[in-house]
Amino acid sequence: MNDSQTTVADLRDLVRRFVDARDWRQFHSPKNLSMAMAIEVAELMEHFQWIEPEESRRANEDPQKLGAVAEELADVLCYALAIANELDIDVSQAMRAKMKKNEIKYPADEYRGRYGPEDSS
Amino acid sequence: MNDSQTTVADLRDLVRRFVDARDWRQFHSPKNLSMAMAIEVAELMEHFQWIEPEESRRANEDPQKLGAVAEELADVLCYALAIANELDIDVSQAMRAKMKKNEIKYPADEYRGRYGPEDSS
Amino acid sequence: MNDSQTTVADLRDLVRRFVDARDWRQFHSPKNLSMAMAIEVAELMEHFQWIEPEESRRANEDPQKLGAVAEELADVLCYALAIANELDIDVSQAMRAKMKKNEIKYPADEYRGRYGPEDSS
Amino acid sequence: MNDSQTTVADLRDLVRRFVDARDWRQFHSPKNLSMAMAIEVAELMEHFQWIEPEESRRANEDPQKLGAVAEELADVLCYALAIANELDIDVSQAMRAKMKKNEIKYPADEYRGRYGPEDSS
Repeated sequence: MNDSQTTVADLRDLVRRFVDARDWRQFHSPKNLSMAMAIEVAELMEHFQWIEPEESRRANEDPQKLGAVAEELADVLCYALAIANELDIDVSQAMRAKMKKNEIKYPADEYRGRYGPEDSS
Repeated sequence: MNDSQTTVADLRDLVRRFVDARDWRQFHSPKNLSMAMAIEVAELMEHFQWIEPEESRRANEDPQKLGAVAEELADVLCYALAIANELDIDVSQAMRAKMKKNEIKYPADEYRGRYGPEDSS
Repeated sequence: MNDSQTTVADLRDLVRRFVDARDWRQFHSPKNLSMAMAIEVAELMEHFQWIEPEESRRANEDPQKLGAVAEELADVLCYALAIANELDIDVSQAMRAKMKKNEIKYPADEYRGRYGPEDSS
Repeated sequence: MNDSQTTVADLRDLVRRFVDARDWRQFHSPKNLSMAMAIEVAELMEHFQWIEPEESRRANEDPQKLGAVAEELADVLCYALAIANELDIDVSQAMRAKMKKNEIKYPADEYRGRYGPEDSS
């Protein structure tokens, strides 16, 4: 069951069942979940903090490193979907809507090879 | 096209096309993306920083607030999937594997109503 | 040597000597240091993520908990001063200047008991 | 009044007076303050997210950029000292104690030019 065979709803259910089985919704206020997500992102950053950006691209050459990174990424996503569950946000619709806004904010022609307005290279 | 009709791969493609159209993979080292994700999580936290956890649960009663939160959540997810794209991580498999580990780390019977070992209530 | 007897420069020297003795300035780009600081803040947040704000006020009733929190706070400050050292920022002047701006942005009379413009209570 | 002429207690007083004048201690639980600090660190990271570590070292060549970075750093420090105020943590003692622990964890001879155990270069 890989990303092509899995709907977002499937993953949301996975998270919901885990949370419900432990009666953890009482802790899962959006405030707490956003903190938890920030903590997991920090654990992901930890793998990259002292190395060069280029070196971080090679994280997938080391299976052990890649496994650890994948696990932290999974943690981030679990909390992101837990927030979606608590607030009843449809993630696919939110992402598509945001991407439409981004298309307008960052026209492809103008931003090709430039990360932002301050990047004049 | 909601979460029940959208695969994770669909969302990854959405992100990939946006990034490729701008030739932004050059900026998308996992190091940079993890920073970007942390920044978006902080923007999400901003909505909740001064309010009580209970009040944060009511974010979905105010459509404008909910829209803003959904947008920040979408940003977090975009960067999370961008990392998955860069490192070729199957997110569904990573989440299922992590949940299996969590099932063992937090047995449902032992942790029902307790958020962690330090919670003796 | 407590906070009344210690200048900011003393603490900056403490950090500088530690860093120089290990030849760590090579890793201490502001980019890397800002990530490191975010990671330490996350470790501080970890102590508070699942508890109520009120309960977090009582962290100083448990000496062990307080010691752990103090240690994370020290880590955050070490990296903050390392950034100041790298970029040659006078922290006392920066803080006084920012407080002057805040005095104007948040006039005491208008914001007494209100955390921000959105807080109408 | 620069860093050589300013004690940590002076800066703590600066923060305390600002907070008290607005009756903001009610919002300043350590939980909330740790979130606020994470948000400010993210705003600092924003200046560095897409650039190379080396380029971030040159932030002090551009007075406007440096001013913006100094302001974010000041915000981080304000919240760090607000936490110290709330929990009555002596920051100078905490930093000296942590540095002693770090001296043992990272002996200078062993870690010269290496950021951690995983850095074998």
